[in-house]
Amino acid sequence: MSQFFTEEGSAQAVNARMGADVEPRLKIVMASLVKHLHAFIKDVQLTQEEWEAAIGFLTRTGQICGNERQEFILLSDTLGASMLVDALNHRRPAGATENTVLGPFHVVGAPEREMGASITLDGKGETCAFEGRVVDINGNPVAGARLDVWSDNPDGFYDVQQPGIQPQWNNRGIFTTGDDGHYRFIGIKPVSYPIPDDGPVGKMLAALGRHPYRPAHMHFIVTAPGFEKIVTHTFAGDDAYLNSDAVFGVKETLVAPFERASDGNTVWRSPFDFVLTPVGGSGTAGA
Amino acid sequence: MSQFFTEEGSAQAVNARMGADVEPRLKIVMASLVKHLHAFIKDVQLTQEEWEAAIGFLTRTGQICGNERQEFILLSDTLGASMLVDALNHRRPAGATENTVLGPFHVVGAPEREMGASITLDGKGETCAFEGRVVDINGNPVAGARLDVWSDNPDGFYDVQQPGIQPQWNNRGIFTTGDDGHYRFIGIKPVSYPIPDDGPVGKMLAALGRHPYRPAHMHFIVTAPGFEKIVTHTFAGDDAYLNSDAVFGVKETLVAPFERASDGNTVWRSPFDFVLTPVGGSGTAGA
Ligand SMILES: [Fe+2]
Ligand SMILES: [Fe+2]
Repeated sequence: MSQFFTEEGSAQAVNARMGADVEPRLKIVMASLVKHLHAFIKDVQLTQEEWEAAIGFLTRTGQICGNERQEFILLSDTLGASMLVDALNHRRPAGATENTVLGPFHVVGAPEREMGASITLDGKGETCAFEGRVVDINGNPVAGARLDVWSDNPDGFYDVQQPGIQPQWNNRGIFTTGDDGHYRFIGIKPVSYPIPDDGPVGKMLAALGRHPYRPAHMHFIVTAPGFEKIVTHTFAGDDAYLNSDAVFGVKETLVAPFERASDGNTVWRSPFDFVLTPVGGSGTAGA
Repeated sequence: MSQFFTEEGSAQAVNARMGADVEPRLKIVMASLVKHLHAFIKDVQLTQEEWEAAIGFLTRTGQICGNERQEFILLSDTLGASMLVDALNHRRPAGATENTVLGPFHVVGAPEREMGASITLDGKGETCAFEGRVVDINGNPVAGARLDVWSDNPDGFYDVQQPGIQPQWNNRGIFTTGDDGHYRFIGIKPVSYPIPDDGPVGKMLAALGRHPYRPAHMHFIVTAPGFEKIVTHTFAGDDAYLNSDAVFGVKETLVAPFERASDGNTVWRSPFDFVLTPVGGSGTAGA
């Protein structure tokens, strides 16, 4: 049987070429990729010049990647692909805390701190008390839940972006709940910041009339034995970029109040409860 | 209006973010790309690990690119995308010579040679007379048609791949037709060769159970005043890889006879006529 290439049968011609012993999941993924790639090219009747521009863009995107920079993740983030993959793989029952993107600034090994302690080492920024409860889906407190938290400083930079300027572990810490499931720590009200926009992805955003900013957020990874890991942020509801996060990380349920604190200990107070689902209790991709 | 990200409305959330002043064609292309990208991710329910593998693959593909190597073009070629773009942009009336991929080994400025001359400078390989006519769609000879031709040597390498081993311009030349539209030159019967397969694309082909070979072919660029440029190959019909070209370049109409020559001047003879369409006479993408 001839498998010569034709415009009509283009995707089939490519997929028919796969061998008989190909790993079954790879076969499914690649066949779908080829089908959608060809459908895209046909839908827009891609020109030779546009194809050349695409090749150039992908090449520059790969070449700017290095130890400090992952431009393809940035591309995936800004096209909503990262959030979509996260959504598919972390479906949770209504009421459970939703995931959002991890982002590039998490660092393993932040200091464990006493409940109620401050994570802000440089004294800069408007202080904010982050507090609430970690509970299961029935509202029962979860003891021994570990909250790994991090945010930017008032200039919009994480400590790892400014070594030598910010103290190491500035605005980072790990807290563990007691029997009451309560947590509380002092940080600052985070600020919005741009994703790196001096590369191909930044040029793409500019061409699409999009800004590179993320609305202010506090990062959380919440883990507890027997429960699914939550990787998420809480977002400041008054942020100008709340409706236009460059990486589409905002979900309605993750918008947290940032209120003026009444106890005089901090300028702000941001209450938020984390609702965990038991391991195996959430739908995952392919399930 | 909130444009928060949801699994269901993921592509719309991304596309709604485009500015009002975006160049209209860019808007169409990017909206379709996002739509198909998200549809692919949903269709296969892409896992986090598969997403990470894709990011890694794209990054390595970009990083191996250099002056001598364009791995993203190789990726496009092996997924049939290059041939599809070519097909969309070079639709021609029945009977006209079809296009195929240019390939990476064309060099501008090959020597102009007398009709009938040899392009093989190293004396290696089985000699072959390439001959035929350049005609318009009505069969009338086209005078002043320029044929820029190139092939590999019997070891499967183009001269530019073996500087210092093959003489410069080995198996390359430019011929111009007279009033009768006839062309004839002496080369060798080309041989099949693998595309570069020591990089990410080669690994992909191996995982898909595909070999990296292209069936033996002679490259042609045929131009004539008032006619559309033809970029094509003729393929040796007896090649073992004819039905499995790694880049899907083979079209039924481009398979040429390679016959034993009867005149004693060469070992082989490969007759092929080129049929040109007038400028503006072929359908192009978007038309
Ligand atoms: Fe962040
Ligand atoms: Fe070739």
